[in-house]
Amino acid sequence: MSIKIEKMDHIGIAVNNLEERLALWETLLGAKAERIEELPERGVKLAHLKFPHSPTVELVSPLNDQAAVAKFLAERGEGIHHFCFEVENIESAFEELKKKGVQFVQDRPYQGAGGSRIVFIHPCSLGGVLIELKEEKKS
Amino acid sequence: MSIKIEKMDHIGIAVNNLEERLALWETLLGAKAERIEELPERGVKLAHLKFPHSPTVELVSPLNDQAAVAKFLAERGEGIHHFCFEVENIESAFEELKKKGVQFVQDRPYQGAGGSRIVFIHPCSLGGVLIELKEEKKS
Repeated sequence: MSIKIEKMDHIGIAVNNLEERLALWETLLGAKAERIEELPERGVKLAHLKFPHSPTVELVSPLNDQAAVAKFLAERGEGIHHFCFEVENIESAFEELKKKGVQFVQDRPYQGAGGSRIVFIHPCSLGGVLIELKEEKKS
Repeated sequence: MSIKIEKMDHIGIAVNNLEERLALWETLLGAKAERIEELPERGVKLAHLKFPHSPTVELVSPLNDQAAVAKFLAERGEGIHHFCFEVENIESAFEELKKKGVQFVQDRPYQGAGGSRIVFIHPCSLGGVLIELKEEKKS
């Protein structure tokens, strides 16, 4: 059995200065930020850029030195950080992958933005790639 | 004026051993490789993984030490390497971005796989992000 992926939801880009990089992406690539949001509980600030027939490009900057993305920036510098697959059922995906020996960054799926539930596959289980799994809030 | 992006075409993942990583992605995420191809002129071997409503995930391994991806692997290890936007017209996108001061990895757009034309925006012009631009062959 394998997990049911609905779509690629977004790509996360780690940046030092969100406003500066956002201006660059807007000027060069004609992107428009749908919104900018601060998530103090995760220690990050986000800008969501929409492109045609594409996952959202999410610029992520840290709000403090404790944020995971602050550590990434300190070690590797700015660049592509992760991407996110939306799954049909995050609990069953989590259990299924656990059974296959996959390690996760968190102990279990947890509350993400807008009522979604998310969890990150640890890069050590997928050849250095950080993948977020997300289940949208059922309306 | 800004460039006309059609869609996000693929995400490139740098891997050391293509067959090994491909088996991992297939087992864990239920992906299937559409095909594996060797591009000796670019020094790389590629596997293209399809997911629903997503850009293709392209696993890339070097065929030799001179390949750009071999340098990336040596410096940063395995992980997300680049992503690719398909554009309507690569020559006009290239000229437009040049005018805005963007640096490219190559001197000009060149022949990619399957009759496409491609060029890479240098990460120094886009906050550490390597973006491929691609124009599909007109049928």
